[in-house]
Amino acid sequence: MSNMSYRIDGLQYANWSEEIFKQMREGGVDAVHVTIAYHENFRETVANIEQWNGFFEQFPELIFHGKTGDDVRLAHETNRTAIFYGFQNPSPMEDDIRLVEILHTLGARFMQLTYNNQSLLATGCYEENDTGITRMGKQVIEEMNRVGLVVDMSHSAEQSTLEAIEFSARPIVVSHANPNFWAPALRNKSNAILKGLGETGGMLGFSMYPHHLKGKGDCSLQSFCQMIANCADKMGVDNIGIGSDLCQDHPDSVVEWMRVGRWTKKIDYGEGSASNAGFPDMPPWFNDNRDFSNVEQGLLEVGFDTQDTAKIMGNNWLSFFDENFGPK
Amino acid sequence: MSNMSYRIDGLQYANWSEEIFKQMREGGVDAVHVTIAYHENFRETVANIEQWNGFFEQFPELIFHGKTGDDVRLAHETNRTAIFYGFQNPSPMEDDIRLVEILHTLGARFMQLTYNNQSLLATGCYEENDTGITRMGKQVIEEMNRVGLVVDMSHSAEQSTLEAIEFSARPIVVSHANPNFWAPALRNKSNAILKGLGETGGMLGFSMYPHHLKGKGDCSLQSFCQMIANCADKMGVDNIGIGSDLCQDHPDSVVEWMRVGRWTKKIDYGEGSASNAGFPDMPPWFNDNRDFSNVEQGLLEVGFDTQDTAKIMGNNWLSFFDENFGPK
Repeated sequence: MSNMSYRIDGLQYANWSEEIFKQMREGGVDAVHVTIAYHENFRETVANIEQWNGFFEQFPELIFHGKTGDDVRLAHETNRTAIFYGFQNPSPMEDDIRLVEILHTLGARFMQLTYNNQSLLATGCYEENDTGITRMGKQVIEEMNRVGLVVDMSHSAEQSTLEAIEFSARPIVVSHANPNFWAPALRNKSNAILKGLGETGGMLGFSMYPHHLKGKGDCSLQSFCQMIANCADKMGVDNIGIGSDLCQDHPDSVVEWMRVGRWTKKIDYGEGSASNAGFPDMPPWFNDNRDFSNVEQGLLEVGFDTQDTAKIMGNNWLSFFDENFGPK
Repeated sequence: MSNMSYRIDGLQYANWSEEIFKQMREGGVDAVHVTIAYHENFRETVANIEQWNGFFEQFPELIFHGKTGDDVRLAHETNRTAIFYGFQNPSPMEDDIRLVEILHTLGARFMQLTYNNQSLLATGCYEENDTGITRMGKQVIEEMNRVGLVVDMSHSAEQSTLEAIEFSARPIVVSHANPNFWAPALRNKSNAILKGLGETGGMLGFSMYPHHLKGKGDCSLQSFCQMIANCADKMGVDNIGIGSDLCQDHPDSVVEWMRVGRWTKKIDYGEGSASNAGFPDMPPWFNDNRDFSNVEQGLLEVGFDTQDTAKIMGNNWLSFFDENFGPK
């Protein structure tokens, strides 16, 4: 199996449609971790799962609900895309630790402990003060470890992220962000976090969302791929992958909702600004699922060999899925 | 495998405890369909599933969550009891047909379309007028058929039950009731229903709840087992089993809640009466899970051979589980 090559995206949040599912097939994408909740409570998250069940009934020849690494292999063999659920925020579990197992049973495989703000569990990357992992956060990480729901710290603050890496008995991920040595956005990650992920079997998924790129939408493919090569030098080539953060076909009202939810009555521009409040323009080399081959080509051009390129494009994520999507 | 003998109870609703789980083991009960909702809405039902997850974590050597027929075999091999979830009322799905699949994913395997009263789906056995299966009821039966959630008409009215047998593309059950030719309670079933269940591969589970017995708690084991023999003559020996309706260790406030829920501000005595409002006394030959061997012995004494006795004590339920607990 070592010469098999899988293509996996570690994070997308699109305005899902048959067109996008067809683009996944055109792009040869075997699996996608899709966001099914930003600010939703439990019942609202269930409604989103119902919507996905509708997609699975409607487009069985394009997509199905993925739960294990073997579902990625099944997707590859049957020319479909396996859809894995994740939350950008712990809001779906409300204040109820036993919802962790319920949500895992319903298919959740990733949960961020915070989305920009302080949560019951940890601190988000836009807060001034960082509590680290809270009392409840420690209990929830243990429960996530038990059932096989992966801790994702993409939108979390530095100390909270380092403590999650340390405290969690199983590897954690930053599913969609870049190193801040390359682009110093609040959402990007320190060398200490990269090192921690690499040493514990975690994963970093590289984001192509313009606010995380050096030069934003003007970032070149070469610069992006060279950054990946530099990361591989720091943390090895086995703990990195793609987490495109593709936010396709949404109106700008959606990015406002992602930032504002129900937590404020004011406008919060997040990574944007008053003059650039909407979704930013994507780099020309990555507009949708059909463009993964550009990234693959870019990785080869900065010097990765075929095997390491395959690891970054999906094989590392598959190894991670195999180990971390259920009880030990 | 034809000489294997499984013991399965088609319905219990107890005040669950370690003591009861140990009694299940002492009684050699491989699987129990347990009621996890009477009047609960979706979120309340999830809370009940959380409680069961707690039991499974606490008593892994006694019980585990059963989802398929093979889980009954696993329970038998590992000296444990597989717990299968069911609802006495469609309240957990609220007015949302897509909750059928969600609830099945969470482990539900039986759902009654009504509990005594009219529901959105059909008519209960205590109503004066019987609508039969409603417009929504037909849609929900199709969805239940699709995912493999079994229609249970134990508390439904005559016409509704006959229509469910007719309309459902897969066999349905009356998990806990007796024939009304033997004991003419409103909850017991007509010969037409018995015939319909037998002809379509359905199941009737015989109840030992006193209000369903001839002579109530004074009913003899011989009378109960002779009734089963008479039923077997009418509908064959392959479509009958036990559905004890054991309601163990509850205070009488629970039977009041079962009858009254939130649908009335008055008292409804259901099968009881003002002078006998609480849980009735069980017959002396069936007080808890340790007494299934009495029933087995009684069946042998009214003339069933070993193989047919094994069918009634659990093998028929197992065949039914194998066929009906998932998509076709």
